[in-house]
Amino acid sequence: MPQVVFTYFNCKALGESARLLLSYGGQEFEDKRFAQETWPAIKPTTPFGQAPMLEIDGKKYAQSMAIARYLGRKYGLGGATLEEDLEIDMNADFINDIRAKAATVQYEADEALKKKKHEDFTQNVYPALLNKLNEIIGQNKGFIALGKLTWADFVFAGMYDYLKFMMQTPDLDEKYPNFKKVVDHVYSLPQLKAYLAAAPKCEV
Amino acid sequence: MPQVVFTYFNCKALGESARLLLSYGGQEFEDKRFAQETWPAIKPTTPFGQAPMLEIDGKKYAQSMAIARYLGRKYGLGGATLEEDLEIDMNADFINDIRAKAATVQYEADEALKKKKHEDFTQNVYPALLNKLNEIIGQNKGFIALGKLTWADFVFAGMYDYLKFMMQTPDLDEKYPNFKKVVDHVYSLPQLKAYLAAAPKCEV
Repeated sequence: MPQVVFTYFNCKALGESARLLLSYGGQEFEDKRFAQETWPAIKPTTPFGQAPMLEIDGKKYAQSMAIARYLGRKYGLGGATLEEDLEIDMNADFINDIRAKAATVQYEADEALKKKKHEDFTQNVYPALLNKLNEIIGQNKGFIALGKLTWADFVFAGMYDYLKFMMQTPDLDEKYPNFKKVVDHVYSLPQLKAYLAAAPKCEV
Repeated sequence: MPQVVFTYFNCKALGESARLLLSYGGQEFEDKRFAQETWPAIKPTTPFGQAPMLEIDGKKYAQSMAIARYLGRKYGLGGATLEEDLEIDMNADFINDIRAKAATVQYEADEALKKKKHEDFTQNVYPALLNKLNEIIGQNKGFIALGKLTWADFVFAGMYDYLKFMMQTPDLDEKYPNFKKVVDHVYSLPQLKAYLAAAPKCEV
């Protein structure tokens, strides 16, 4: 078994998908979580100055979506054909687009501007995107793509609380009932039980 | 040969990679370009309300990076192993992160704020990202990943003028000399000659 270290902040956000996928794959790994104040020291040791980072036998990889796709394909959660992989990828990228929109609000330093942006997005941007995503999950029987479990479900489930937090929408479960189905599908997997029992509890 | 239609604005930006890859693969396709004012009518016919869109025998796909990865793997421009695919994916996603940063400036509606953001990013954000990318390309012998031609080169080459435009940096060639190497590697491919000769000339 390769030596695996996964390095990320002590939160779920963009890192949890990899932790869940590694656990699903039965891969032992060092779950290296760092505090915000340590980041400046870790940053220059990562491939692009970004977290998360996955190390496999000392080789360093970055980018959360790329890492999730890699682990997913490795553990049998990819498509059976190039076209199926494309369906997973496009739906996963659509989720990531929604996440990126919310992040432009969350990480706006100017408080007045942040408030204005949040109101604008809540009215004019989020509803169409979230309705579409809810519809896609409905068509896929409670999964993100292919009507069955794929690595894209881990991406969504892992960042769901982060998404709620950034969108300032604690009622996402009620408004878009299919979202919770994906989360439940992933978090009820028996392969994840030991990891979930031992992992630090994080809000987002 | 499947029936392929590729639908995007009449510009390179996020669509050119797919056009170049289809041409590289010898795939005949309808290069459906629409004017800005037609977008509201086309938007609801796309999978996510987003362009570009790739149709293969009537089936619709979205998301530029997912499409480029699909076409790349189909035409032999992917990795030989999952780890190689991960290297391509992470470097391509890093490029896409840079593009997304520049897009938050470009699509800021408030002119004063746009100016402020541009100045901030030009001083505090772009240099580290662009230096890192230039370094990566240097390590990869003038390519984005694996030290040879992959679909990620098509992504970068296809959006290079768009990147220059959004970053308001016409001198990118001089400042980061490796960028042009990737562009030249792609645009000099003999497989693209016919497409490039026939395609409408677009600034970005």
